[in-house]
Amino acid sequence: MSLDRIRLASLHNKVISAEEAAKFIKDGMTVGMSGFTRAGEAKAVPLALVEQAKNNPLKITLITGASLGNDLDKKLTETGVLARRLPFQVDNTLRKAINKGEVMFIDQHLSETVEQMRNGQLKKTELAIIEAVAITEDGGIIPTTSVGNSASFVEFADQVIVEINTNLSPAFEGLHDIYIPPMRPTRGAIPLTEVDQRIGTSAIKVDPSKIVGIVINSELHDSPSTVTEPDDETQGIADHLIAFFEKEVSEGRLPRSLGPLQAGIGSIANAVLTGLKDSNFENLIMYSEVLQDCTFELIDAGKMIFASGSSITLSEKYGEKVFGNIEAYKDKLVLRPQEISNHPELVRRLGIIGINTALEFDIYGNVNSTHVCGTKMMNGIGGSGDFARNAHMAIFVTKSIAKGGDISSIVPFASHIDHAEHDVDVLVTEQGLADLRGLAPRERARAIIDNCAHPMYRDALNDYFTRACEKGGQTPHILREALSWHSNFEEQGKMLVEAK
Amino acid sequence: MSLDRIRLASLHNKVISAEEAAKFIKDGMTVGMSGFTRAGEAKAVPLALVEQAKNNPLKITLITGASLGNDLDKKLTETGVLARRLPFQVDNTLRKAINKGEVMFIDQHLSETVEQMRNGQLKKTELAIIEAVAITEDGGIIPTTSVGNSASFVEFADQVIVEINTNLSPAFEGLHDIYIPPMRPTRGAIPLTEVDQRIGTSAIKVDPSKIVGIVINSELHDSPSTVTEPDDETQGIADHLIAFFEKEVSEGRLPRSLGPLQAGIGSIANAVLTGLKDSNFENLIMYSEVLQDCTFELIDAGKMIFASGSSITLSEKYGEKVFGNIEAYKDKLVLRPQEISNHPELVRRLGIIGINTALEFDIYGNVNSTHVCGTKMMNGIGGSGDFARNAHMAIFVTKSIAKGGDISSIVPFASHIDHAEHDVDVLVTEQGLADLRGLAPRERARAIIDNCAHPMYRDALNDYFTRACEKGGQTPHILREALSWHSNFEEQGKMLVEAK
Repeated sequence: MSLDRIRLASLHNKVISAEEAAKFIKDGMTVGMSGFTRAGEAKAVPLALVEQAKNNPLKITLITGASLGNDLDKKLTETGVLARRLPFQVDNTLRKAINKGEVMFIDQHLSETVEQMRNGQLKKTELAIIEAVAITEDGGIIPTTSVGNSASFVEFADQVIVEINTNLSPAFEGLHDIYIPPMRPTRGAIPLTEVDQRIGTSAIKVDPSKIVGIVINSELHDSPSTVTEPDDETQGIADHLIAFFEKEVSEGRLPRSLGPLQAGIGSIANAVLTGLKDSNFENLIMYSEVLQDCTFELIDAGKMIFASGSSITLSEKYGEKVFGNIEAYKDKLVLRPQEISNHPELVRRLGIIGINTALEFDIYGNVNSTHVCGTKMMNGIGGSGDFARNAHMAIFVTKSIAKGGDISSIVPFASHIDHAEHDVDVLVTEQGLADLRGLAPRERARAIIDNCAHPMYRDALNDYFTRACEKGGQTPHILREALSWHSNFEEQGKMLVEAK
Repeated sequence: MSLDRIRLASLHNKVISAEEAAKFIKDGMTVGMSGFTRAGEAKAVPLALVEQAKNNPLKITLITGASLGNDLDKKLTETGVLARRLPFQVDNTLRKAINKGEVMFIDQHLSETVEQMRNGQLKKTELAIIEAVAITEDGGIIPTTSVGNSASFVEFADQVIVEINTNLSPAFEGLHDIYIPPMRPTRGAIPLTEVDQRIGTSAIKVDPSKIVGIVINSELHDSPSTVTEPDDETQGIADHLIAFFEKEVSEGRLPRSLGPLQAGIGSIANAVLTGLKDSNFENLIMYSEVLQDCTFELIDAGKMIFASGSSITLSEKYGEKVFGNIEAYKDKLVLRPQEISNHPELVRRLGIIGINTALEFDIYGNVNSTHVCGTKMMNGIGGSGDFARNAHMAIFVTKSIAKGGDISSIVPFASHIDHAEHDVDVLVTEQGLADLRGLAPRERARAIIDNCAHPMYRDALNDYFTRACEKGGQTPHILREALSWHSNFEEQGKMLVEAK
């Protein structure tokens, strides 16, 4: 039992078991839990809840920063604990329950959840469960590998459970910068004007009397990232994007340090950033939500000088290197609440270059980030909308085909639209890059079909576009056909079929 | 000739005729012109250009704040002057040319045009043509009934033409607050924290040597607003929204002054705001883009204490009253650049309640603001996206049916999506109001069909939704049918036809 991690002695008697802590979670409650992109979630308490729920069923609304590791969403779904879930998830079992309508999933811009709670538009969290490396002398909670929505959950909740993860070094203290915007109408500007600036405190402030239990976890770790290695396609996407950045620099539209980079979670964005290692760009900085392996590859290579995020999600290899040696990285890193990492005010002010993954996009540049064939939720919009709407440049990347070519990622009409064409500046596939800035929809279609579509789909897209233009319109379409590629896939397993 | 309006004497010799001024406009040029929602556009020079173009054809890119009055877009289209047009328009002749693909129309968030120009992402204006009430002693340009993008056009352009409108009182001076965000990466916070705060200058700064011509217009006026009187449906929408606001106030989620209001241009939004005159709310304020009759009705009634906008667009009746007596209103008004009136940083900070008109929305709350049957441009997205994404509350209003009932404004699948469901909090028709906050898509559908759809379409929407739910998904759809209502309308003139 590591009571030295609880530096406010009056809290020592609050140490309880995970099983005791889980009993604070009642049927119908709204629970706010730490955890963002499989990083820094409370672990022991939700696992104890899963065990208890097997005998004493209950249903809760679970709100986190983003996705959870340790198969928590899977286990909570299997035991029927989740009535409502927000604002993001990546779990296969939960996904199935969502798509059956068994769990109500509220898919949100990640900067907005606690803003809506603050304003009473979402029900406030009654109980907060927060992973920490330590509790300070005045009761402050030092988060671990993510900040997410934890600080606001603690502020709103009547009861707080702290789960201390003794696997992580106390040296995490000082990594975080906790700033919460004040209530309106007397809210001032967020004082952050530089990516490496600190505007808050290193701990989450809490009235110690709200802490109802402290659980010590010395066994459970963050789940390693599942990001796969770059392949020919992701390397191709990276190459196109780097060539584009070179052009922007040479034509004076970007500095050689590019500007603050944001990259969504996933293998493609990771490969793109890793590709910058061998580029001519210098003094790179990130202002992103999740910091993946690529961030540390770039820092280690001397290419990146600072990275701001809301979480660190690493592979096993990088996890050992970084988390085992966090002191060495601390002056180049800061973790912020996701409201701040993704805040529209800051995204616009700082001039973020946002790189996010699309599931599909249409010939006019409308992007689907979330729904397979327009209906089935994959993960959620995450921060992509926070960044794309307000960024200096909104870039979306995807492979041009999927399922061995049965699916084209470029379609006549996106089957679900998360990002309207107004918010999409650049599209990249392994085939090439479409720079859509300043183009009207018909011009966008030409650029997208010619540069991004896979050759096996180009004729069919051109045929659709040509016939649609004959009908006319700012955004020409043949509505009877617009979604037929998706219907074909649902019915026959491929988007293009012989006879119409 | 009113040289007293040109207070910098060294500019007196720059006075030229509109015909001479129009000769500065060359084939292929990018021209930035004042004008926002039919307010404050240069008038004499573009009309002279129209005349000249009849004999000497030329093509330009015309960028304004928003829409123009005096049939300028119509006449410029008819004479073939417009190659490209952005970021907004409302003219029937131009609309037809856009939909034929004859004019490339770039439909943009109104806060973004000059930001993209500043960063070299859009071509900068070479020539600026700006309506003014006066030029100050140091050459500053005092705008008239709108600010729009004028200040940035003047900054970017090599040549500036000022068109002085002597029909308007010199007392307009002091109405405007000109603030332009500095270039990145050293951009600070925008220092505005209160709706009635002034953070800039009363005139547009310009190096007087850039002024190549000054035209005196003593004949042409702003075109009056075309807003129609409230009818039963718009009154119904207003009543539902006011009842909702009452509930928000009584439950402590809004103050009795509601918060800064934004209302899109048009009859419905105007009717809704006018409805507030007979409500119990007090000390109302606006932070909007266009100030219409309703703003002044509320000010005159003592209900509204301050209004910030980028333009004033009034009916003939209100125009005489307000513009003839601007001194009386000046302490309750400010006009800002549209980049500031619509800026995401400020929209989020101030907590705007945004009320905008939808063309249609689907059962999940995705909103089409722009495209008739998904293809034909109506006006443009305008500021609705600037507000909806970042607002405290994004409200969209529309009548539940159109064309005598042949069209339902509530459809299975929006034929074009400008605002994804993530950005839509409340939907209102004359039938009722759907409060979508915190709801998952299936719950949103229930709320929208039950509250907003016209009874004549409710069964068909329920039938679609029920069958779609049987297929499953987070956002259930039957893709073969999803757009069939629109196809039916295109082919048979009504959305619902007897046999499937």
